[in-house]
Amino acid sequence: MTKKLVFVRHGQSEWNLANKFTGWVDVDLSDKGVEEAISAGNKIKEAGIEFDVAYTSVLKRAIKTCNYVLEYSNQMWVPVYKSWRLNERHYGALQGLNKKETADKYGDEQVHIWRRSYDILPPLLDDNDHDKLSNQREYRYLPEELVPRGENLKVTLERCLPYYEDHIAKDLLEGKTVLVAAHGNSLRAMAKHIEGISDDDIMDLEIPTGSPLVYELDDNLKVIKKYYL
Amino acid sequence: MTKKLVFVRHGQSEWNLANKFTGWVDVDLSDKGVEEAISAGNKIKEAGIEFDVAYTSVLKRAIKTCNYVLEYSNQMWVPVYKSWRLNERHYGALQGLNKKETADKYGDEQVHIWRRSYDILPPLLDDNDHDKLSNQREYRYLPEELVPRGENLKVTLERCLPYYEDHIAKDLLEGKTVLVAAHGNSLRAMAKHIEGISDDDIMDLEIPTGSPLVYELDDNLKVIKKYYL
Repeated sequence: MTKKLVFVRHGQSEWNLANKFTGWVDVDLSDKGVEEAISAGNKIKEAGIEFDVAYTSVLKRAIKTCNYVLEYSNQMWVPVYKSWRLNERHYGALQGLNKKETADKYGDEQVHIWRRSYDILPPLLDDNDHDKLSNQREYRYLPEELVPRGENLKVTLERCLPYYEDHIAKDLLEGKTVLVAAHGNSLRAMAKHIEGISDDDIMDLEIPTGSPLVYELDDNLKVIKKYYL
Repeated sequence: MTKKLVFVRHGQSEWNLANKFTGWVDVDLSDKGVEEAISAGNKIKEAGIEFDVAYTSVLKRAIKTCNYVLEYSNQMWVPVYKSWRLNERHYGALQGLNKKETADKYGDEQVHIWRRSYDILPPLLDDNDHDKLSNQREYRYLPEELVPRGENLKVTLERCLPYYEDHIAKDLLEGKTVLVAAHGNSLRAMAKHIEGISDDDIMDLEIPTGSPLVYELDDNLKVIKKYYL
């Protein structure tokens, strides 16, 4: 039986608008981001996709996107699970900095490397900022070494994968239709795994916001069909 | 250690506005209902209440209330569980009827009895309407005899109680602070159990909308203190 997995990338946040590195900072959707989430929900309704379960991160821009998608496709009752493992890539000490100012300071090429290389880490959080993060209520239960100081896509994939395997893939194999509402890089990481994309090619994959990505998968969770709504 | 349980009753729905019996019909919050939910969230934020877990029904007016409360108290990452057992009292064949017209047809006294007696059932759903309800996706997995044809508060309490005992009370006993965002009658049913209110007195308990009800409970989940925010 064909299994269906739908990725929705959250739309514009207040810091996208301000051109800042965001990562794990819990900023809200902008008005445009809300419209994108509603539009994704309407497209899913038109496509007649009925979810059995939904997954999202612990960041409100993804959670709100998830909620809007379920609301506007008339299936708000669907169970939603939230995990830090689906969070955006942690951008280390770059979080909160303006992208333009960072480029002026470090040079365009360095910023390009931080943004576009698969396995080069950004500048890391210092102890003080890492302590602050580890002490936030949503991460406090985690062993401190699991709370990142900064991630590349490789590390993002490594911490997403256990959640994908234990929850998302498991549900798909049981025949469930699954929604994942998350972030550019956590979705990209899982797409790399699902589609078998190489380290070199993955950074070119840009999942659009507001347009749900649908995977139809076989019994081994290999891709039969991939399309955007 | 004192345990904390917070009840939030959803505010005005579109059918409250239209003066209709609602029950399990999945109507949305009105604009006023959204404002009440946001106000409840702000009050919880001001009171500094930090939830570990939240419970709601599978009806969107309660789910949205839950989401707004978590959003406006800055704790959207808190896990939310949805269950049909926290749904509003099922109003049987009265659902969808205008309250005034129903009173004109059956008499004020009969309607008062249906609304205010603890153990008298409303007119029940016929087979056709019961089949429709049982076939809705959110209830399809349930044995047909568990899907109600109409409920009084007694029956509402009987189907809420297993969920309260297995999830809400269990979490409280483990020291968690719990939010329940639900409906006038499912909250009233649990309040009857928690406070030990008699069958005769319970229908006089009116939990206000938009004002969170806080219970502070002892190690046996007996009420130490009860107040509204």
